[in-house]
Amino acid sequence: MGRMAEPGVYEFPVQVRYMEVDAQNVVFNAWYLTYFDEAFNGFLTARGLSYQKMIDSGFDVQLVHTDIDWVSGLRWGDDVRVAVSTARVGTTSFALDFQTRRLGQPTCTARTVYVVIATDGSGKRPIPPILAEALGPPAPLRAV
Amino acid sequence: MGRMAEPGVYEFPVQVRYMEVDAQNVVFNAWYLTYFDEAFNGFLTARGLSYQKMIDSGFDVQLVHTDIDWVSGLRWGDDVRVAVSTARVGTTSFALDFQTRRLGQPTCTARTVYVVIATDGSGKRPIPPILAEALGPPAPLRAV
Amino acid sequence: MGRMAEPGVYEFPVQVRYMEVDAQNVVFNAWYLTYFDEAFNGFLTARGLSYQKMIDSGFDVQLVHTDIDWVSGLRWGDDVRVAVSTARVGTTSFALDFQTRRLGQPTCTARTVYVVIATDGSGKRPIPPILAEALGPPAPLRAV
Amino acid sequence: MGRMAEPGVYEFPVQVRYMEVDAQNVVFNAWYLTYFDEAFNGFLTARGLSYQKMIDSGFDVQLVHTDIDWVSGLRWGDDVRVAVSTARVGTTSFALDFQTRRLGQPTCTARTVYVVIATDGSGKRPIPPILAEALGPPAPLRAV
Repeated sequence: MGRMAEPGVYEFPVQVRYMEVDAQNVVFNAWYLTYFDEAFNGFLTARGLSYQKMIDSGFDVQLVHTDIDWVSGLRWGDDVRVAVSTARVGTTSFALDFQTRRLGQPTCTARTVYVVIATDGSGKRPIPPILAEALGPPAPLRAV
Repeated sequence: MGRMAEPGVYEFPVQVRYMEVDAQNVVFNAWYLTYFDEAFNGFLTARGLSYQKMIDSGFDVQLVHTDIDWVSGLRWGDDVRVAVSTARVGTTSFALDFQTRRLGQPTCTARTVYVVIATDGSGKRPIPPILAEALGPPAPLRAV
Repeated sequence: MGRMAEPGVYEFPVQVRYMEVDAQNVVFNAWYLTYFDEAFNGFLTARGLSYQKMIDSGFDVQLVHTDIDWVSGLRWGDDVRVAVSTARVGTTSFALDFQTRRLGQPTCTARTVYVVIATDGSGKRPIPPILAEALGPPAPLRAV
Repeated sequence: MGRMAEPGVYEFPVQVRYMEVDAQNVVFNAWYLTYFDEAFNGFLTARGLSYQKMIDSGFDVQLVHTDIDWVSGLRWGDDVRVAVSTARVGTTSFALDFQTRRLGQPTCTARTVYVVIATDGSGKRPIPPILAEALGPPAPLRAV
């Protein structure tokens, strides 16, 4: 569904919906996290690791931190893609960068941090090779 | 949290949120189903049957039909209550009526139909006594 | 974005999102109205009448009624299209039919009724020729 | 609707909804921004500045940055309050801190930055006295 943009960066097409636009006529801020979540899945799937495959392997991810900067608002009907890249890979956590792009121009940039957990409820787990491979080498979209 | 209004009718207070208002400055239609869902739970809980208790008893409900009529739009900041009542109780299904009220005036009326299913995935089930008792005698808010 | 399916029926591709799936592991009912809203816009746009063009012509539409029947639940990752067709064209109102289809199989069918209003706040208006032409002859997807 | 908690901190009661809980059985991350938005409004209103009053005074606010840390997930039925306080007041921007609390225990902490803009579309504006007064002296809920 998406495509590779510049090296290490995947672009996921988002359908901005009419109901996501608020009384200020721009997409309400919360929806960006929804966009990022779908883009995250598209990113991993494009690299061979579907969410189902990850779950079947016994682990899941939890969002523990996000940092978002908005530059301008998105409107209904805008042609929007969410760029995704690996920002950092640690021992039990990793960070992804997201950037909403309207006709190629960034309108919002974010970094999110995820921890890997076991699906059996036993808590944190080191990043498994299958995920490390999918994340690949970092190609950050923002400085911090 | 809610209260009994007229006989057989429960009123649940809804928090209309800024983000639910669309570019037409009224609450987008989809949010009404969210309001009804919470009001449904408040209604049953007020009658002694919490959702958890129902699940623990081995059954769940599925929405299979809804019929909604809008008279006027809700706005952010409006004082809104959702009236709920039992409309009909059948063998494996039941219907509830919902009515959003702003300062006591109806703005939208709906009827929804639910079927009872087993939580073990074995399909439809007759309405169990515990639910029939909570639903009580019908007190419809609309004709059909 | 979408395409014509059978005669008089347009199909709009919907992105089911992870966050739309509830604790029952199926898409929560309210999201269907969001899907229909986007499909409605895609339908009119495909027939030459974008929402902006309609607004610029001085009129808008309001949803006043909906009737939805669910047959089975949608899941995240499902390939979903929303079929849209004109069900009825009246004097100041019209009805559309919607049908969510997973791999071609219907999972939910709906009929919604809209009234035409003036954008200047003066109330209801007869359906303008530009809209009547876009709606075209009825091709219902459900009996009522 | 809310109440003052510790000095400089307002607590807003949030209705966690069933549909906000995802397949992981916790509130999906995006909804926190919705909670914060309502809590922000409750905070200002409690200090005498309703959103409408602010708009009528000729200015509005835009969210330009947010930083969120999640400690644990919220579930449907949880008793949740969102604590809000002023974190920093600058020339044309200000920061608020938010903290979701379940039975008094923090589950998520955030800082958001807003800029003040004119409602006539002329861009950024210095924080007006009416807003500065409502924000009051900082009482941060997090270090950064």
